[in-house]
Amino acid sequence: MSSKVIITIFGASGDLAKRKLYPSLFRLYKSGNLSKHFAVIGTARRPWSKEYFESVVVESITDLADSPEQAQEFAGHFYYQSHDVQDTEHYIELKKLQTRLNQEYQAEHNKLFFLSMAPQFFGTIAKHLKSEQIVDGQGFERLIVEKPFGTDLSTASQLNQELLATFDEEQIFRIDHYLGKEMIQNIFAIRFANSLFENIWNRNYIDNIQITFAEQLGVEERGGYYDQSGALRDMVQNHTLQLLSLLAMDMPSAFTKEAIRTEKVKVFERLRKPSQEELKKLFIRGQYKSGTVDGKKYISYRSEPNVNPESETETFVSGAFFVDSERFRHVPFFFRTGKRLTAKGTHVNIVFKQMDSIFGQSLEPNVLTIYIQPTEGFSLSVNGKEVGEQFRLAPISFDYRTDATATGASQEPYEKLIFDVLNNDSTNFSHWDEVRASWELIDQIEAIWQENQVPLHHYEAGSMGPEAAFELLQEFGAKWQWDPREK
Amino acid sequence: MSSKVIITIFGASGDLAKRKLYPSLFRLYKSGNLSKHFAVIGTARRPWSKEYFESVVVESITDLADSPEQAQEFAGHFYYQSHDVQDTEHYIELKKLQTRLNQEYQAEHNKLFFLSMAPQFFGTIAKHLKSEQIVDGQGFERLIVEKPFGTDLSTASQLNQELLATFDEEQIFRIDHYLGKEMIQNIFAIRFANSLFENIWNRNYIDNIQITFAEQLGVEERGGYYDQSGALRDMVQNHTLQLLSLLAMDMPSAFTKEAIRTEKVKVFERLRKPSQEELKKLFIRGQYKSGTVDGKKYISYRSEPNVNPESETETFVSGAFFVDSERFRHVPFFFRTGKRLTAKGTHVNIVFKQMDSIFGQSLEPNVLTIYIQPTEGFSLSVNGKEVGEQFRLAPISFDYRTDATATGASQEPYEKLIFDVLNNDSTNFSHWDEVRASWELIDQIEAIWQENQVPLHHYEAGSMGPEAAFELLQEFGAKWQWDPREK
Repeated sequence: MSSKVIITIFGASGDLAKRKLYPSLFRLYKSGNLSKHFAVIGTARRPWSKEYFESVVVESITDLADSPEQAQEFAGHFYYQSHDVQDTEHYIELKKLQTRLNQEYQAEHNKLFFLSMAPQFFGTIAKHLKSEQIVDGQGFERLIVEKPFGTDLSTASQLNQELLATFDEEQIFRIDHYLGKEMIQNIFAIRFANSLFENIWNRNYIDNIQITFAEQLGVEERGGYYDQSGALRDMVQNHTLQLLSLLAMDMPSAFTKEAIRTEKVKVFERLRKPSQEELKKLFIRGQYKSGTVDGKKYISYRSEPNVNPESETETFVSGAFFVDSERFRHVPFFFRTGKRLTAKGTHVNIVFKQMDSIFGQSLEPNVLTIYIQPTEGFSLSVNGKEVGEQFRLAPISFDYRTDATATGASQEPYEKLIFDVLNNDSTNFSHWDEVRASWELIDQIEAIWQENQVPLHHYEAGSMGPEAAFELLQEFGAKWQWDPREK
Repeated sequence: MSSKVIITIFGASGDLAKRKLYPSLFRLYKSGNLSKHFAVIGTARRPWSKEYFESVVVESITDLADSPEQAQEFAGHFYYQSHDVQDTEHYIELKKLQTRLNQEYQAEHNKLFFLSMAPQFFGTIAKHLKSEQIVDGQGFERLIVEKPFGTDLSTASQLNQELLATFDEEQIFRIDHYLGKEMIQNIFAIRFANSLFENIWNRNYIDNIQITFAEQLGVEERGGYYDQSGALRDMVQNHTLQLLSLLAMDMPSAFTKEAIRTEKVKVFERLRKPSQEELKKLFIRGQYKSGTVDGKKYISYRSEPNVNPESETETFVSGAFFVDSERFRHVPFFFRTGKRLTAKGTHVNIVFKQMDSIFGQSLEPNVLTIYIQPTEGFSLSVNGKEVGEQFRLAPISFDYRTDATATGASQEPYEKLIFDVLNNDSTNFSHWDEVRASWELIDQIEAIWQENQVPLHHYEAGSMGPEAAFELLQEFGAKWQWDPREK
């Protein structure tokens, strides 16, 4: 990989930059993936000095650094420019700084731009980067953009057009930080390095697949943004559908970004576009009411700060997607995501079809569970014999837990993803074809909801969402394999 | 089940009776499977009194009893008769005792006979049981016999004929104590209650199956018996082939002794009879030399007490069996068993065929391991992603361990097996058809060895047997999955 690069961050004073980017860059520095030949230009409106910026960076990595000297040495690579994204003069300054640092750090003209700010500024930034020749065709030039990428197909397309004026699709890295997680990465290994699973990873053996993104938190301080967005746009359009594509894709011809992208895009293309009737039946929306968890009382979503007291925004979505591929035709991909649920956790359950019982006792299905967070690992639920004289079946579990979380070896997704960008590896980013196809589907669901054709279910804080999300699976003869209320 | 029974043990003063039978009977008593209506008649040559016999029984169960009173109450059910198995008078006495106890304990004429002595006496005991009408056709009448059941096909057939003079095949329960073990029982569950495994349990997906019975002990005080028998007769004819039949059998139509026996017998019938050439190539014999383990020196087999100093008896056997069934044709069932090996353990490894790698890195096969003893549990070896920025595969393991051993809930195999006999459940016993077929195969191997057509390999104490046992698998492109020397 090339560790020679000038990284320019738009939105360098923001929360994300401090919590995620600087620590991730430091980890790459510490592991030797970034060494001497790199510098970071932070830009934002605030009039910070280099010294102050360095102190912000140092503070964000204190826990990670071996010594204050190491932290300071790292922060020395950081430069700050006060920047109004609409002001051409500022880009001229930026160009000068960029040119100077490129020489000073012998960065071979390699440039990485990170847009960590509201999408409405993406267009103007991209335009200026080109017009002021900050993007000048020398070295590599790559752009990382944060979600949300649009709010529907139309805005996403417009955003994309604006970026394409300056960058090619191959230069654009759309971050979905879930794709940087260890256990999401592990799906490639589990599926494509194990005949045991690959042989049965299809509709002949799999009954259904379940994806749960459960949060215990409410909307917290994000009420203003969230109330405009809702769970469908915030969690389903990106994370859920990306995860689904990894679970549903065919085996790539090689483990390369091109081959993987080809297979992922095929999944998005084959996502079933539901009929109007199906749209009403297959997707459930909910919003949390007040409720009590462990004796603590929580307020309703409508009472949260910066939320419209009559808000119809969903804080919970559940539904069933279908992929009309030879591999997965007719297999429901159930999903649910919501705030203020019983427990926190991102889990995938692969539920296998079960055989008839010869034991005079019905058989639980075999289930492969992928624990993505906060627990990381796998478990395989199997029917075994209960210890004792009698022959009685009972579910037993084959478990694997990474000790990564415990040892701190697990990477921050941003570390992995920046590493990938430096390697020009777009495997773990969302391609425009994927973004487009997912917005097409999400827009269909939103349309039905906008017309109020389906109810907004109000569920108690601390529950696992509205009853309707359970009934949905019952109609398919299935049930949610993960039910934290049972424990 | 019927807990009304008079149990007669031939060989009541023996080691097995004290170590296994009395504790097992006591566990059944404690769990309520034997209650008031049972008595045990112990017979042996020694002139013991009932009191002394009771004290022997009490001593054997001291650790298990809740109180001395409970132990004494249990031992009160035990009666002793000094007995010369050749003396008709003694059977007349036995009949009287049996009749009296049947009345006293209201045992409804149910009788269970346990032959815990050398096989040369089986015939005369069976004959007398009938002639003196101890076996009289009233109630149930069942016979438990211990291994070894013959030393070759001819002696086994003769033994069987002698028993059949008095008992039907359906009344004869030939014990193979391995079949009473929890994890052996669990094979039924794993195979026939889990589509995940049953779907791939055949030659399309399984590359080979490996059975290891490894002992760290040497021949200990059994030199006299063992030197006449050897590992092939002592471990392969019974345990190995029984275990193989459970692994190779087709799915029974029901979970009944008849249906299971049908499928097991099919496996024995389809065991490939190797050609003379194959017999020489497929089976390896070895004998331990002296060696040093953890600094401790062990003597050679030939130096053990009661062993012929020029003994050619094998203390190690390895080989490959084949089952010419539609399910397993061409799949080698590798086995090895030996004394003075590196580690102690009975393991089964199901090695699945692996797919081609798209990862630029060769793939380890998926392996399902069944830990039978001393560890009890399963593990499934899978290729996962190593934690870190790079995508590197590394074997990970999905594990399940029974806590049975730890909690003491795991049964003594004899407890389970006596429970089964009382329930008239012969599932976990060796049918004559199985014994016959296995001797036919074992006799073929013995014949080649008797003619000294293959070498007797001398392996070091503390090794995993002769090199030839590793080379055997290499010829099939396989390797032993369990290699305790690696850890």
